[in-house]
Amino acid sequence: MTEALKLYFSPLACSLASRIALYECGAAAEFVQVDGNTKLTLGGQNYLHIHPLGLVPALELPNGDVISENPAVLQYIAEQLSGGGATPADATQRARLHQYLSFIGSELHKAIFTPLLDRKASESVKAYALEKVDKRFSWLSDRLANRHHLLDEFSVADAYLLAVLNWCRVTPVELDAWPVLRGYEARLRERPAVLRAFTEELELYRQQQARSGVAPRSKPPSVETAR
Amino acid sequence: MTEALKLYFSPLACSLASRIALYECGAAAEFVQVDGNTKLTLGGQNYLHIHPLGLVPALELPNGDVISENPAVLQYIAEQLSGGGATPADATQRARLHQYLSFIGSELHKAIFTPLLDRKASESVKAYALEKVDKRFSWLSDRLANRHHLLDEFSVADAYLLAVLNWCRVTPVELDAWPVLRGYEARLRERPAVLRAFTEELELYRQQQARSGVAPRSKPPSVETAR
Repeated sequence: MTEALKLYFSPLACSLASRIALYECGAAAEFVQVDGNTKLTLGGQNYLHIHPLGLVPALELPNGDVISENPAVLQYIAEQLSGGGATPADATQRARLHQYLSFIGSELHKAIFTPLLDRKASESVKAYALEKVDKRFSWLSDRLANRHHLLDEFSVADAYLLAVLNWCRVTPVELDAWPVLRGYEARLRERPAVLRAFTEELELYRQQQARSGVAPRSKPPSVETAR
Repeated sequence: MTEALKLYFSPLACSLASRIALYECGAAAEFVQVDGNTKLTLGGQNYLHIHPLGLVPALELPNGDVISENPAVLQYIAEQLSGGGATPADATQRARLHQYLSFIGSELHKAIFTPLLDRKASESVKAYALEKVDKRFSWLSDRLANRHHLLDEFSVADAYLLAVLNWCRVTPVELDAWPVLRGYEARLRERPAVLRAFTEELELYRQQQARSGVAPRSKPPSVETAR
């Protein structure tokens, strides 16, 4: 079954987490690259026919069903494939997995990074998003103090968090202000599956930028400066 | 076990979904009301000691563990208690549950309604949120055409969506522009557990507003007018 899973992704978008999950599982899958601006696949297919909202990732199953939303795609991969942070059997650990996937998706990804990464968002919209950083990063830092992973072992929640924390490199959010998070990220990026996924998508990202003629994102002024 | 579950909620906040889920299950639980502004419980307890981010819902388990994030609380309730939208056994249906909980939490709740409900958000922040309505509500409307529930039967995803759609009454989002969604909401609000939950929390909301001296929210100009 695994050979027929098809992952629609954009380089260094949150779909990177699903690539990490697949590599952690050692699973084969077909990767279809989507240009986030044109909504076309590299092969010229209209991605809106796959997912009308145009958001990545989407996972196409062998029967043609399409699953969207990162937490759903990640959990499907973890459940179907062995290893790589399968869904915990313990009810409280499972609740923690759901809690972290939801926190990362809503409080970090959508509330903070989506506006910061949006070239069309105004300065006041970005400032509103930046105001949310301190409380949420501090809470997360407190959770990760003295532990290596969000749950008892590496899970798809870590994969999602790594994809999101990477965006600190091109937004005013200063990861250095949270040494616990910076250390967590540095350690986990050494995992072979994580390193491979980041290396590959960084190269694909650069190729996409070169094709589009859009200047690559660079780090803007820090939170403090921006305020 | 169920008698010891403790749900921290604010009237008509997204925690309403968890009340609906508990009532659908016929489960006993202790409800602890939190004032969203002061972050104090009605009994004067500092809610930040329960959940440092101050967000509701939080579910306190008999052993003292606290689960936050609405999708996690909802799934814990659905998994632990019989009926009321237990987690589907089929992998694809389970993925759909995860997909809808994530979509409602990130794309509707956080991206659209959190800024619209935030009295401190600027007009440009609210306008940015309103721009997201059409695409997301249209996608949702397409999904719900010709069906009564998000999944094959009532689930905690419906409970969450009902809590979120209710906010159309106090924001410029016009539910009337999406007859499918309006019909879906009207039908599901007739369910006894849903009706009971909404009726009780509306009364608690009014009492809270009266105590705080803050004017109750009313419907602002429509999306069209606001643009």
